Amino acid sequence: MQDLRNSLAEEQPRINSSLQLALRELPPGARPVAEHVLAAGGKRLRPFLTLLCGRALGCRDSGLYLLGAAVEMLHAATLLHDDILDNSRLRRGKPAAHTVFDPSTVILAGDAMLAKALLMVSAHGDPRLTACISEAVMRTAEGEILEFGQLRKASLSHEEYLDMITGKTAWMLRASCELGALRAEADEDLVRAAASFGLELGIAFQIVDDALDFSPPASGKEEAGTGKPRGGDLREGKLTPPLLFYLSSLPASEASGFMERFAADLLSEAEMDSVCATVHDRGFALKARDLAGAHLERAKAALRAFPPTPERDLLEKMTVYIQQRDQ
Amino acid sequence: MQDLRNSLAEEQPRINSSLQLALRELPPGARPVAEHVLAAGGKRLRPFLTLLCGRALGCRDSGLYLLGAAVEMLHAATLLHDDILDNSRLRRGKPAAHTVFDPSTVILAGDAMLAKALLMVSAHGDPRLTACISEAVMRTAEGEILEFGQLRKASLSHEEYLDMITGKTAWMLRASCELGALRAEADEDLVRAAASFGLELGIAFQIVDDALDFSPPASGKEEAGTGKPRGGDLREGKLTPPLLFYLSSLPASEASGFMERFAADLLSEAEMDSVCATVHDRGFALKARDLAGAHLERAKAALRAFPPTPERDLLEKMTVYIQQRDQ
Repeated sequence: MQDLRNSLAEEQPRINSSLQLALRELPPGARPVAEHVLAAGGKRLRPFLTLLCGRALGCRDSGLYLLGAAVEMLHAATLLHDDILDNSRLRRGKPAAHTVFDPSTVILAGDAMLAKALLMVSAHGDPRLTACISEAVMRTAEGEILEFGQLRKASLSHEEYLDMITGKTAWMLRASCELGALRAEADEDLVRAAASFGLELGIAFQIVDDALDFSPPASGKEEAGTGKPRGGDLREGKLTPPLLFYLSSLPASEASGFMERFAADLLSEAEMDSVCATVHDRGFALKARDLAGAHLERAKAALRAFPPTPERDLLEKMTVYIQQRDQ
Repeated sequence: MQDLRNSLAEEQPRINSSLQLALRELPPGARPVAEHVLAAGGKRLRPFLTLLCGRALGCRDSGLYLLGAAVEMLHAATLLHDDILDNSRLRRGKPAAHTVFDPSTVILAGDAMLAKALLMVSAHGDPRLTACISEAVMRTAEGEILEFGQLRKASLSHEEYLDMITGKTAWMLRASCELGALRAEADEDLVRAAASFGLELGIAFQIVDDALDFSPPASGKEEAGTGKPRGGDLREGKLTPPLLFYLSSLPASEASGFMERFAADLLSEAEMDSVCATVHDRGFALKARDLAGAHLERAKAALRAFPPTPERDLLEKMTVYIQQRDQ
């Protein structure tokens, strides 16, 4: 795992330089908003995936950094729109853009960043790249519409949850990997393998994210020190696997009573704290991680089509990193 | 002019069929919103420009309809975001999408439509097309950010106004024309001529639109019958040429007093009605149309690079149509 962390740390400065160049080419009105959201940090996981997949399939040119920067730009654009829709006050521990700039400018800056990202991809002159990234934007928006429709629903099937996170999160990771493979001019089956790896990794990434929401925050984080699970999703009316496992563990009448009040937003703070603690103590968050594990196995299986390279090893370690991540 | 109207009327059904096909390929969550905004009407001027420019430069294939539909889809996506930002209740006399669907879904449907439009363009396999349309999306967002920053400003230069409408409106008309020329595989100078024609036409289109805002609505329209100028821009805090001409006509102290109260949103209804009437009666709206005329002359000049064809004649008549339009 340490070599994965080292490699990511080594690449971050060059990824950030490519992003800086792209930022300078944004329309002046959109630039401060874009700088704000990109300066808030982020591990640059998506560009890193583009780099690794491209290199694992034989691409050695620096065009991968530009593609990676485009994906991160796109991701940042969706964060801007998301935070407005969720009315989130914080993003990565810093004030969300729409609390600093006016929301209209933030929506439009998101549009400009989205367009800039597509422009960066189309500059490569390969229409398959543009089709890949446009499809990802469309699927991401669809996933977010689904998530919105699922808020405070009194029931949610595993399939509905999976459809939603596949759109909301996994398509963009899928595109990150596929773009690298396409740029490497890899054979069709390898492009498919890269896409499949990214998709399964993305699904697992979101499931682990949702599991983390029921874990005490890692030390050093904004809410650290309370030792209490966060439970932000429960408060926002989002049904995720840990909560679904908790509900299945309750007697039917108790579960339906709980869900009625969840749907009507009538749960008390004390009750939500107690549910979060129970979800954590009874291991439902860990059970969700197991669910993520099944998708990571599929991701690893897809990776077997890749030729053996140091980059393939790093991609495989990425599955372990996702499974274990604690923030 | 009648042949222009006839040609537009003839093409509309096929443009609408292409749009219907594209609508069916949108993610299900975005579809009702897209159908709502596209069903509200619109003359399909942008796709018509793509068709005319493509044909004028020798393209005979049906790919032009798909490109035109993509441009209209993009235009509709920007309308969705615009109406939210402006908090407009009506669009083309029908309820704006965000008054029928929830605003979050409308923002996301806009994103999905934007992505779908880019996907439709990238399906043509020509990266110049994708670059053209992505650039237009970025410039449109920038223009809208500028417009937002100019709301209730106590002064506005002609250049600032021009920069703003060039982004907000003209870039998308420029792209509509350029896409047709690119699809026709026209020589570089003809592509530039098409782009220049579209840009100047777009600038004139917006100036006339802003002039119309100070004219009594045409009969049959939602506000018809009052006989009073609309003045929506004045009410919303937007400085446009007719109002700028009015201000220049006032003694300096009177103008600055007016502008202070305009900037602070302190103008009474009666005062705004009176300003609208004065702008109209003293011919400042007509003077704005003259300003548009200068840009239409440049559009016509650009058109001279085109070979003589019936389509070129129709494009030239389009400049007359824009100059004279009364709704």
